Amino acid sequence: MDLETLEVGYDIPARPGQRVVEVLTPALIIDLDRFERNLGRMRNFIARHGLRLRAHAKTHKSADIALRQIVEGGACGICCQKVSEAEAFVRAGITDILVSNEVRGDARADRLAWLAAKARIIVCVDDIRSVGELSLAAQRHGSTLEVLVEIDCGAHRCGVAPGAAAVDLACAVNEAPALRFEGLQAYQGSLQHIEAPVERRRNAETAAQATRTTVEMLAAAGMECRTVGGAGTGSFAMDAELGVINELQCGSYIFMDAHYDRVKEDGGGKPGGMENALFVMAGVMSTAIPGRPVCDAGLKALAVDSGLPRVDRAEIRYVRATDEHGVLDDPERVLDVGDRLLLVPGHCDPTCNLHDWYVAVRGERVEAIWPVTARGKLF
Amino acid sequence: MDLETLEVGYDIPARPGQRVVEVLTPALIIDLDRFERNLGRMRNFIARHGLRLRAHAKTHKSADIALRQIVEGGACGICCQKVSEAEAFVRAGITDILVSNEVRGDARADRLAWLAAKARIIVCVDDIRSVGELSLAAQRHGSTLEVLVEIDCGAHRCGVAPGAAAVDLACAVNEAPALRFEGLQAYQGSLQHIEAPVERRRNAETAAQATRTTVEMLAAAGMECRTVGGAGTGSFAMDAELGVINELQCGSYIFMDAHYDRVKEDGGGKPGGMENALFVMAGVMSTAIPGRPVCDAGLKALAVDSGLPRVDRAEIRYVRATDEHGVLDDPERVLDVGDRLLLVPGHCDPTCNLHDWYVAVRGERVEAIWPVTARGKLF
Repeated sequence: MDLETLEVGYDIPARPGQRVVEVLTPALIIDLDRFERNLGRMRNFIARHGLRLRAHAKTHKSADIALRQIVEGGACGICCQKVSEAEAFVRAGITDILVSNEVRGDARADRLAWLAAKARIIVCVDDIRSVGELSLAAQRHGSTLEVLVEIDCGAHRCGVAPGAAAVDLACAVNEAPALRFEGLQAYQGSLQHIEAPVERRRNAETAAQATRTTVEMLAAAGMECRTVGGAGTGSFAMDAELGVINELQCGSYIFMDAHYDRVKEDGGGKPGGMENALFVMAGVMSTAIPGRPVCDAGLKALAVDSGLPRVDRAEIRYVRATDEHGVLDDPERVLDVGDRLLLVPGHCDPTCNLHDWYVAVRGERVEAIWPVTARGKLF
Repeated sequence: MDLETLEVGYDIPARPGQRVVEVLTPALIIDLDRFERNLGRMRNFIARHGLRLRAHAKTHKSADIALRQIVEGGACGICCQKVSEAEAFVRAGITDILVSNEVRGDARADRLAWLAAKARIIVCVDDIRSVGELSLAAQRHGSTLEVLVEIDCGAHRCGVAPGAAAVDLACAVNEAPALRFEGLQAYQGSLQHIEAPVERRRNAETAAQATRTTVEMLAAAGMECRTVGGAGTGSFAMDAELGVINELQCGSYIFMDAHYDRVKEDGGGKPGGMENALFVMAGVMSTAIPGRPVCDAGLKALAVDSGLPRVDRAEIRYVRATDEHGVLDDPERVLDVGDRLLLVPGHCDPTCNLHDWYVAVRGERVEAIWPVTARGKLF
């Protein structure tokens, strides 16, 4: 075997300048025109409402996209969820990062504090013991970690109860060496995908009321919340009206997905008027069973936790996913081997995490290839 | 920011020699003792039945594991599903590979034929046009592609109908320059997870009968099937009895998963007596909600297409997965932050594809770190 001739790079699905029909499938496609319109919609929204945007990079895990969100999209920085993700973004030149999650244990706290000597790092706490871990680590590295106290706004995942428990924890942060109390993490994740706007708004109001009360109690105790972070793509318009959150943490807005297709605004449109800008391009690879063609994108190219993908052609449905195959329903038998389909993933975040590359296209041409910088950064 | 001091390698969850309790979570763990017993069980099984094993590497995507399957586990080679996967395995030194799937389009056929100049490459066809694509490509590269005609044994995905259609296609392969007819691909994927052994056996018998008829028709037409490939972890014992398949393509047997926990043999045990050898080790990161602790392994660390993971402790259940969190039910409130749990993934193949590294452990120590060589190789 002649190892010398094994070229590097076949694993890249396309090259800039190629025609879209030449992209190897399955591939993660960004429609740049739509993506840029989504960026602009959010930039205008935060300007109009006097809010900050800290775009959630867990959606895309891409340094190229994060930089565009900051430079062109009005974001003050990014969120991510894991220390290893934050590290990948710091390596790529992003200098203002909230790990919108609890970081527990001395090893992780140590690494986060080490990063905080190189970039602005903010982190969440929901346990007094975490304050000690982070403070010791930051002292070791001579860095400062900024801290948001996470409150449970109704999602019942992480976060202390709003009110007195949050104030107690904020006091502990305030007194801990090498930590700086920055405000509250008030993200209500479970309301983002409530489809009916009336019910979504009711949940957003409950969360906002609990958050407002906590902010006021903190102020009475002499602690100002410079940041009240929260809001997602399903709730940001409501949260802006409610006026408690001052730093939006939306992620999916740049891409949207089939799950968000079902989440409606009052007028019936999608949240913020955002457009689907992310697709998995699949190729038909077998038509052996009439009316049931098979494409080359299955469970390893598409996350199905929030449902199967929607085919961007009304007459075709994606009906079954196995590891490397997707079975299609094609009642009119219009598809042939080699035909390409754009699939709108059920859930954008875990779908992006399956791929190594974004193929950024404009019209019929590939314009850029962006690595999924923090893919698989789990710790 | 001092880029020079950003070390490479934090993204590796452990180092050989570390204690298992030091592994960064979430991490993909192989229990080496169980894994080696599974390897041995299959090696003994094929020896006893006079069968070949072509282990399916789509399960693990790891060159280290593939080499162990060949050197210690009795396998004659491996299967994989994509050209880019095959290329990653050839680069890693594996020299006998079946792409147990259709490879369509001139670009992919070209790359496969190029690989066939460096290793033994076998591929499936279910369309006469594919024969032309592959033959032209192999002629261009001066290589020979071996070909299995795929028949639909009841899974209704890819494959021509058993019988005359398969014979016609085999004749075309036989006559095509630079192709060699090797036999049949007769894998019935949809029966592997039928839980009741009686019903699973009925499906295996139907598939075997269709396959046997096709083998006999091919023989009558002067075409010998050197390889009749098929069988999975749920059916290999039955397929061995039925006596048509001569090359087993089992993948999950080395690891097993929570879905295969429910697939029973006649005596009530797991297929082939295999043991769970693969786990996602998760750490508890929040206990803010009493009785509902949160661990650090969610949708990006665990595939949930076949159900949520099973916790390897009877009193704890994993009840909800979000992107980076897993919510646990802990009615006795025994868990605290920092506690570690071994989770048996719902579906091993797409779970492994989420991770960059296997942490191979023996007892309380990390013995090796193996890359997931072909992770994300989708084309």
